[in-house]
Amino acid sequence: MTTINRRDLVKMIGGAGAGVAATLAVRPGTARAAATPPAPNPQVLPWPYKPLDPEAIAQRATDSYYKAECMYGSFEAIVGATAEQLGAPYKDFPFLMMKYGGGGINGWGTICGALSGAAAAFQLLSPKPDGLIDAIFVWYESTALPDFLPKGAKFPEIRSVSGTPLCHTSISKWCAAAQKTTYSPERRERCGAIAGAVARKAVLLLNEQAAAKPITTALPAVAQNCMSCHERGGALENSRGKMNCGGCHSPMLGKHPAGV
Amino acid sequence: MTTINRRDLVKMIGGAGAGVAATLAVRPGTARAAATPPAPNPQVLPWPYKPLDPEAIAQRATDSYYKAECMYGSFEAIVGATAEQLGAPYKDFPFLMMKYGGGGINGWGTICGALSGAAAAFQLLSPKPDGLIDAIFVWYESTALPDFLPKGAKFPEIRSVSGTPLCHTSISKWCAAAQKTTYSPERRERCGAIAGAVARKAVLLLNEQAAAKPITTALPAVAQNCMSCHERGGALENSRGKMNCGGCHSPMLGKHPAGV
Repeated sequence: MTTINRRDLVKMIGGAGAGVAATLAVRPGTARAAATPPAPNPQVLPWPYKPLDPEAIAQRATDSYYKAECMYGSFEAIVGATAEQLGAPYKDFPFLMMKYGGGGINGWGTICGALSGAAAAFQLLSPKPDGLIDAIFVWYESTALPDFLPKGAKFPEIRSVSGTPLCHTSISKWCAAAQKTTYSPERRERCGAIAGAVARKAVLLLNEQAAAKPITTALPAVAQNCMSCHERGGALENSRGKMNCGGCHSPMLGKHPAGV
Repeated sequence: MTTINRRDLVKMIGGAGAGVAATLAVRPGTARAAATPPAPNPQVLPWPYKPLDPEAIAQRATDSYYKAECMYGSFEAIVGATAEQLGAPYKDFPFLMMKYGGGGINGWGTICGALSGAAAAFQLLSPKPDGLIDAIFVWYESTALPDFLPKGAKFPEIRSVSGTPLCHTSISKWCAAAQKTTYSPERRERCGAIAGAVARKAVLLLNEQAAAKPITTALPAVAQNCMSCHERGGALENSRGKMNCGGCHSPMLGKHPAGV
């Protein structure tokens, strides 16, 4: 038998965190039961988001890019900064999982990892992520990027418009504009800056939404024209997607049926 | 002052899990200090993986698809089942974050969400995820899918070869084979089955790797031919990616410079 007072008990289990507090709190008849908030549950989405500094997050994303690639870069900067504000158990998130998205997923050239990381962050931190995803994808397709110059950049800033959210095309278009090869150090620095640019834009959008500003996005007119036949409710309805069709299909347009 | 024995103490804090055990264990001078393993840290990758049942995981992925789309479907089935084996704090992972990947990321038609979920799961659970990602992407591009028929399927099984890991093209090719529209209930059921098929393949690969079997993958010969000029070390080196080029570029091949 051990003799122990309440203070000793709390001291003994002090490092165990909110789970213990909750266990003690719900014991019937204790005075603290009503006052103790529930233990935070990181499975409940969205996580509480407090506006972040876009410039600081941009630099953090570029820095993280050099640790584990582009998707980790944008995601870790936004969600890592938020998790640090929230503390445990949010900080338990396995951030390095996002390394998989590097180079359009392990170098496959599919979705730009910086965009994918931002989209995942939106789903985690926003009550209405869909509009934010659409907004950042359209912005990425249509904006000369990267529009962020990281500290310590070694090469001249060169921007290009990707016309697509896909890594492969985005990289090839930049390399054509910069007259650099796809595995050059200049291209690698460019993708680090892209991680920063995308993370900054993502934070700007999250902050706008948190301030109850409306987020509206329109797909490009040329894509809307294609989609009027090929997408939902069109005469053909044989396509699903929101990418700007011309990002891949421009060489086909000469063969397209007349009258469209 | 409260009188309490050790058994009561353990009973009181029983719901608090490993954190408490560790806190008690590291108190200096206790006999258990050396024997207690450190508290598990879900940030340390890979998470401990124990082989799963591919058929059960396939069905779980399809069921999860109907909760939060394709990326959630494959990821939740594989990682959720693993997290249940591992317990807290692994189960804290915010699984619903993966909803963002639905329809190639919020309907954009980029990377197939089922594939993206599998790739994320590989990064989380495998000591060597890169080879697994390549293996499942090549399999997805070249196999008639879905090769999994979920319980309760309402429509006849129809398979197609996507030729690409991208959602938009994968869906359009299946719709052409099935003569169904892209927003039909048949197409939706097909994507649920794709989530199951991909999750099953992912578990087979994880189990093979866990059994120390070699995982080897070769990109299609036609893609290797393109890449010999356009990819790393080629005369042009103006592309980055591993996708089968013909998935998007086949209409361009008639215009390609002669001699290739």
